[in-house]
Amino acid sequence: MKHIIVFGAGLSSSYLIKYLLSNAKKENWQISIIDANLELAQKKVGKSQFAKAIAIDINNKEEREKLIQTADLVISLLPPTLHILVAKDCIKSAKNLITASYVSEEMKSLDKAAQKAGILLLNEIGLDPGIDHLSAMQMIHHIQKDGGEITSFKSYCGGLVAPEYDDNPWNYKFTWNPRNVILAGQATATYLENKQVKFIPPNRIFNQTVDVMVPELGKFESYANRDSLGYISPYGIDSAHTVLRGTLRRKNYCQNWNYLVNLGLTDDTYKIANSENMTYRDLMAAFLSGANQQNLEIQLSRFMNKAQTSKEFQRIKWLGLLNDEKIGISNASPAQILQHLLTQKWKLKKGELDMIVMKHEITYKKDKKNFKANSSLIVKGDDEVYTAMAKTVGLPMAIAAKLILQGKIVDKGVRIPLSPMYYEPILKELAKFDIKFIEH
Amino acid sequence: MKHIIVFGAGLSSSYLIKYLLSNAKKENWQISIIDANLELAQKKVGKSQFAKAIAIDINNKEEREKLIQTADLVISLLPPTLHILVAKDCIKSAKNLITASYVSEEMKSLDKAAQKAGILLLNEIGLDPGIDHLSAMQMIHHIQKDGGEITSFKSYCGGLVAPEYDDNPWNYKFTWNPRNVILAGQATATYLENKQVKFIPPNRIFNQTVDVMVPELGKFESYANRDSLGYISPYGIDSAHTVLRGTLRRKNYCQNWNYLVNLGLTDDTYKIANSENMTYRDLMAAFLSGANQQNLEIQLSRFMNKAQTSKEFQRIKWLGLLNDEKIGISNASPAQILQHLLTQKWKLKKGELDMIVMKHEITYKKDKKNFKANSSLIVKGDDEVYTAMAKTVGLPMAIAAKLILQGKIVDKGVRIPLSPMYYEPILKELAKFDIKFIEH
Repeated sequence: MKHIIVFGAGLSSSYLIKYLLSNAKKENWQISIIDANLELAQKKVGKSQFAKAIAIDINNKEEREKLIQTADLVISLLPPTLHILVAKDCIKSAKNLITASYVSEEMKSLDKAAQKAGILLLNEIGLDPGIDHLSAMQMIHHIQKDGGEITSFKSYCGGLVAPEYDDNPWNYKFTWNPRNVILAGQATATYLENKQVKFIPPNRIFNQTVDVMVPELGKFESYANRDSLGYISPYGIDSAHTVLRGTLRRKNYCQNWNYLVNLGLTDDTYKIANSENMTYRDLMAAFLSGANQQNLEIQLSRFMNKAQTSKEFQRIKWLGLLNDEKIGISNASPAQILQHLLTQKWKLKKGELDMIVMKHEITYKKDKKNFKANSSLIVKGDDEVYTAMAKTVGLPMAIAAKLILQGKIVDKGVRIPLSPMYYEPILKELAKFDIKFIEH
Repeated sequence: MKHIIVFGAGLSSSYLIKYLLSNAKKENWQISIIDANLELAQKKVGKSQFAKAIAIDINNKEEREKLIQTADLVISLLPPTLHILVAKDCIKSAKNLITASYVSEEMKSLDKAAQKAGILLLNEIGLDPGIDHLSAMQMIHHIQKDGGEITSFKSYCGGLVAPEYDDNPWNYKFTWNPRNVILAGQATATYLENKQVKFIPPNRIFNQTVDVMVPELGKFESYANRDSLGYISPYGIDSAHTVLRGTLRRKNYCQNWNYLVNLGLTDDTYKIANSENMTYRDLMAAFLSGANQQNLEIQLSRFMNKAQTSKEFQRIKWLGLLNDEKIGISNASPAQILQHLLTQKWKLKKGELDMIVMKHEITYKKDKKNFKANSSLIVKGDDEVYTAMAKTVGLPMAIAAKLILQGKIVDKGVRIPLSPMYYEPILKELAKFDIKFIEH
């Protein structure tokens, strides 16, 4: 019997745990679901005889270590900053670890220790990062084996609302951690354009978008992710003159979001002392010199350089930012206030489905001729628990766990899934769950 | 005999030490000038029999404490973050302390301990903050005693180049710490406008300037300081509907600086790995999508929405940002690179003089009628050591030191100079040094 420990029973765990439970008998697994909230963990376990729910305080070193000693493999769905605690315990007890998060500098520094302990700390094996790596590497290796030389690599991914439920003027609803959406683009983005390293400072990230067409779905736009340069060498595409990774939104979202950024509404660096008793209208007036309760619409229209009848202006109004409604949360940053409001406005309602869209656009040279290779992925959620996001984040982790325990993935150190050993079996099994790329 | 200890013998110390030395005999003072650089301290002492130069490591607690025990009064010209070390020693040994820096939260928290020790920790007694407080409070109290009610308070101050040497298209040269100029405006500014609290996010601070006329000198513009609200209550001007404190620059500086901000050149949050071998032209191209060595001028002109022949474009060009010259410093942030360049371009040359400009604009109501009270200060430097900045920062501290040692200023706790006990004698003596406000 193999013992799998899963840290975290939140939003992203549903599909992962479902997969583990349904394979438990066949694979001879015992699964422990760990969460500070025991009820949440119990709910995920359900009536399965192969799993149990445990509540521990993740910061309790002794309890954590003792638990990890009993594992054969650990999966961490904890907030990214907490992975490092678990990773260090895993090294101490020589247990393999899986996370869906970007490799932090701290995680990277554990590489030698992990190799010495003979274990694999596998990261970036969720959706983005995760499925993007798997599918991109399959395309890249295929082209390169065929004698092609990659000249440009662009990759986009977004978590959105499914078209059937896309019924607000922003064409966006929260399908994931709202705070990440509010604070997106607050650090300079870097990418490669025509062999030149480019920087986009935060105040221009949502202004400098590129259009992306996705078959069956139509027009999207993408803003640049923080670091596209870091993947050039690991992907083996040093021949590329252009490398860009971005986040997908429906057309016009980014320009409208940029107004909120430039107003100052996404700032999380200071608190507004009397925010509780302010209205959203007060807040907006505070960010516009010359604005007051009476002339706010005129001043906002002037700031945006858009008529009050424009779609852009109406999107701001639709959010309720011009309303006399009390904000109601105290000592909050502008970003916290905006999140508080948007969590109501951009809520994915019961019965509504989310959607994951990913697209790779590759150009390459072969026999002195230029070629294009595009592929895209569309995944819709089953319901509000088994969302497309939970599915695409959780399944690659779960499948990787199985392959590691079966001895089919044999790797050591701090790794991300770039080699055929990862992408071949994982993409194959994802296809069975209708997570399939279409080439075009 | 009274022993005065001065920490720091850098740029800002020249006038302060000159004043102390020239009053030492009459006042029966012995002065110790402390600096990590002994030579620098010795140069300031010169041949005076009333002073000596000492080199200590400011972080050596034992050495520092021992020294402070011998003092009657301590003056700290150290970087603001180091004042707290000295302040704690002063409390321990019950010695008075003077600094020209803003009261930090940490300094504020020492108030009770300072009162208990029976000592004065006097801060914000330089130029800005310092002379601005003294002169504003004199005006405010005068108006209020006369039955007036302050309705608006605006105060501006800038360290600039004297008009005779104002010979570059930016109308600006460094007369003080360049790093502070490069990093100015990187936090949200708050002020009061028509009874409404207003916020200006960093990306709009240099875009949202107000024009300021100064008699004899003409047109200036001002960008908002970080916190104007914090002075409303200490100044006793809760009746005011508008309260704004700002930094003065010559007209058109701010708009042009804003292009550098929006390009991303003032960002200090990340390093550019290969900066040493890049040229300034490479750097500019990196911040403009679509730009390369050939079309850089066209792309920059498009970004600025200004013709290449425009003054705005020419100001950027004059800085050398379009030149093929190597940057030459390694692993530097954009802000560090910009500072490196501007330190050469905006250098106050030997023989050139600096200038301090301050202006208060007050409106008030009396007998149901509205009045205006304006006053301004212009101070030019004597030479490149005895600058206007060193004079206006150093003399208020030096005079305050004398008044404390003479027992004419009697105060306890963490204080800033707002009461007549401070402004009456200090402004009177500053006038003897030609630091005189003109009312108009």
